[in-house]
Amino acid sequence: MKVKLASSYGFCFGVKRAIDIAQQHTNSATMGPLIHNQKEINRLNNDFNVGLYKDLNDVKKDDTVIIRTHGIPKDDLKELKQKEDVKVINATCPFVTTPQQIVKKMSAEGYSILIFGDKEHPEVKGVQSYSQDDVHVILEPTELDNIIFKNDKIATVAQTTRKKEKYLEIVNTLILKNKEVRVFNTICDATFENQDAARELSSEVDIMIVIGGKNSSNTKQLLTIAQEKCENSFLIEDETELDTAWFKDKNSCGVTAGASTPDWIIQNVITKIEKL
Amino acid sequence: MKVKLASSYGFCFGVKRAIDIAQQHTNSATMGPLIHNQKEINRLNNDFNVGLYKDLNDVKKDDTVIIRTHGIPKDDLKELKQKEDVKVINATCPFVTTPQQIVKKMSAEGYSILIFGDKEHPEVKGVQSYSQDDVHVILEPTELDNIIFKNDKIATVAQTTRKKEKYLEIVNTLILKNKEVRVFNTICDATFENQDAARELSSEVDIMIVIGGKNSSNTKQLLTIAQEKCENSFLIEDETELDTAWFKDKNSCGVTAGASTPDWIIQNVITKIEKL
Repeated sequence: MKVKLASSYGFCFGVKRAIDIAQQHTNSATMGPLIHNQKEINRLNNDFNVGLYKDLNDVKKDDTVIIRTHGIPKDDLKELKQKEDVKVINATCPFVTTPQQIVKKMSAEGYSILIFGDKEHPEVKGVQSYSQDDVHVILEPTELDNIIFKNDKIATVAQTTRKKEKYLEIVNTLILKNKEVRVFNTICDATFENQDAARELSSEVDIMIVIGGKNSSNTKQLLTIAQEKCENSFLIEDETELDTAWFKDKNSCGVTAGASTPDWIIQNVITKIEKL
Repeated sequence: MKVKLASSYGFCFGVKRAIDIAQQHTNSATMGPLIHNQKEINRLNNDFNVGLYKDLNDVKKDDTVIIRTHGIPKDDLKELKQKEDVKVINATCPFVTTPQQIVKKMSAEGYSILIFGDKEHPEVKGVQSYSQDDVHVILEPTELDNIIFKNDKIATVAQTTRKKEKYLEIVNTLILKNKEVRVFNTICDATFENQDAARELSSEVDIMIVIGGKNSSNTKQLLTIAQEKCENSFLIEDETELDTAWFKDKNSCGVTAGASTPDWIIQNVITKIEKL
């Protein structure tokens, strides 16, 4: 079977960078999971002795602690840096550091802060922690009806993985109701690059394999996109789930992977398909 | 005939204010026309001896010069204020002074400036003059394709009488292409208040009279709105154009007026209709 890999797939820049950093710091621990993929966390633990800390209480003397890709709240970072004999390595994605610093600066300048994102997501919790008190987190424009800003000068940032169209809807509602809206486009293109590549590839092949967590929303979205052009599209977590019946009478197979899928799992899948 | 006046009509706040200022300064002259209505300019001249200057060369010693509602370019204002024995009265609408000051401040802070408006309009020329060199004026989002900003930090203002929907289209395009967009909502609601009031009134009456210049785009828009709910809608410049045939078998008449129509013309029309 001929296999074609999507031109963009799997880990984004920030996750790749954080994993590189972790691999360079053996015998360390990450503060919070580096990535939403247990197999990759296990690999880092087994091959590089990189452990996983749940909170600051886990940190011990002489530890090397790696701040995860999505960042952590400002006060946690401060507390961590103040601990004696603890080495802190910051692997926060630069695309996440940017909204953190914007929120810090804008809040200090007296702007009310609006964050477009999921208030339960670690990235958003981290970004939010850089604001003074007048900070609000929403996912839908209608939620603005319930917010009372202290100011008519609003600064707004977005969680890096959100959709631009929805951000613009929120921004438009803000502009109509406020004198000044300072819009920072902090949305990262990586997620959408994987989607665009999946769309393109699925129109060229007989079967599409999407690799990723069955509960991962970004992986499920890749599957939906693949199915639009290629009805023989399947979602698997690893090579053990491949079914030879899918490939009967097919000539070409496209492969893509969700943003939390490690390269070595993708490689195992490709190797197995090529042997079919 | 029973006459009902729209809840909002005619002059906006800024024009009313400028005319009040002119009436308080007899034997003066306005720098540029105070309003796009020759009859009102004639009235100010005849009743208050308020003349009309076309440019700075017209200004003489001991003059009192009134800056018109739409404002004038920054350097003209500076030159005027530097003239000896000339008293300058600034009747620029505060809603126009605001974008002037925003553009001055943002440009000084290093932002590229985008103005949504008509580059030939005196208001826009005035606002633009407060910027350093990196300033651009557009009416359509597509014009952004031809603009090279020096910065990826853009500050944007709108001509006060423009439509919000179009401004949002332009802003959305900017946000997708730039790191920071600082959006100042400088659009004035006055024009739209007259339109909303015309829409409401036209559904309650048998005939609608719209008073204003036949070439005035804002007056023509009021007529179009009136005609949607009341097919017997007519545009006149003053009471001499009223046709008694229009009012045959009608019980109630609604009246509204464009933004450049003086109150005394509106009053003459109402008086004549009431006598029908």
